[in-house]
Amino acid sequence: MTVFGIDPGSERTGYACVHTDGQRHQLVACGAISVPSRAAFPQRLHAIHLGLVRLLTKYRPDCVAIEGVFHAVNARSALKLGHARGIAMLAAVQAGVPLVEYSPAAIKKAVVGHGRADKHQVQQMVRLLLRLEQVPTPHDAADAVAIAICHLHHIESGAARQGLAPAAGRPRSWRQVRTTDLGL
Amino acid sequence: MTVFGIDPGSERTGYACVHTDGQRHQLVACGAISVPSRAAFPQRLHAIHLGLVRLLTKYRPDCVAIEGVFHAVNARSALKLGHARGIAMLAAVQAGVPLVEYSPAAIKKAVVGHGRADKHQVQQMVRLLLRLEQVPTPHDAADAVAIAICHLHHIESGAARQGLAPAAGRPRSWRQVRTTDLGL
Repeated sequence: MTVFGIDPGSERTGYACVHTDGQRHQLVACGAISVPSRAAFPQRLHAIHLGLVRLLTKYRPDCVAIEGVFHAVNARSALKLGHARGIAMLAAVQAGVPLVEYSPAAIKKAVVGHGRADKHQVQQMVRLLLRLEQVPTPHDAADAVAIAICHLHHIESGAARQGLAPAAGRPRSWRQVRTTDLGL
Repeated sequence: MTVFGIDPGSERTGYACVHTDGQRHQLVACGAISVPSRAAFPQRLHAIHLGLVRLLTKYRPDCVAIEGVFHAVNARSALKLGHARGIAMLAAVQAGVPLVEYSPAAIKKAVVGHGRADKHQVQQMVRLLLRLEQVPTPHDAADAVAIAICHLHHIESGAARQGLAPAAGRPRSWRQVRTTDLGL
């Protein structure tokens, strides 16, 4: 199972491809599609779309996970974000990949253990869960990894509930990684 | 010169193709890309994109004109609208067609003569300027026609300022159509 997380933004769109064999999560790739700030807004959207289409063709994930927006700061930033989210959703549908959304609180809860975790806590848990030496950069990439991990966790917990995976064979989930391990 | 106006919306996206020979404006086509309300949001965006790509391929306009959003009602509606606008912008860039934006007030001013005109006034002026028997329906289509007319007017007035078109040869612009003609 390979999940492709997307953290959309009109200036930088984070992405992460995370694979699991049912035992361990492995970060296949992550990064951000950056567009020169001098580029016109429609050209930025085009670059994001092109980048996502290429990545989805390359990694052929089983699912795309994206952060849902439920409490936008203001109408102007919501509008801007909406453009980039629309592009990301379109790229997923065009690639024929199912799309799932998670609220920011659900992502934090799935990765850190509670919905009010801060960015630093999420980033450190991402690093720990994927056994990385460093937190992925830029932060948009780390956010995309967190979104992908969130979906993997939800699949695992759902499969466990349905008896599809033996409890002993399940990967170590966030529930077993106490935030105190990280000094958070 | 052919202008393709777009009034984006996640439930219905209005479009209009308006041609001018420098003397008269002619409505080539208008309508709305409707998506079943039961369709999932990402599928709706995909249908809008597909529809716009087909229309832009068919009509090969010289320019795409779209309504700019400067005062969104609230963050939630701005976010939703942003998705559809992003899709429309992407379709224009992919078609290699220049994209222009006009504020709602600029569109009303260009079509009716003042920026505080209501929907009914705009629709009636659209009908009159294009010598149509009826106001285009649905209203999203009429709005898209108004956006296209707005751009044509701006081109004409710009060309006249630059001495590119003789004043006598210019098409009848909104300035010459008094709103009292319509009983507005």
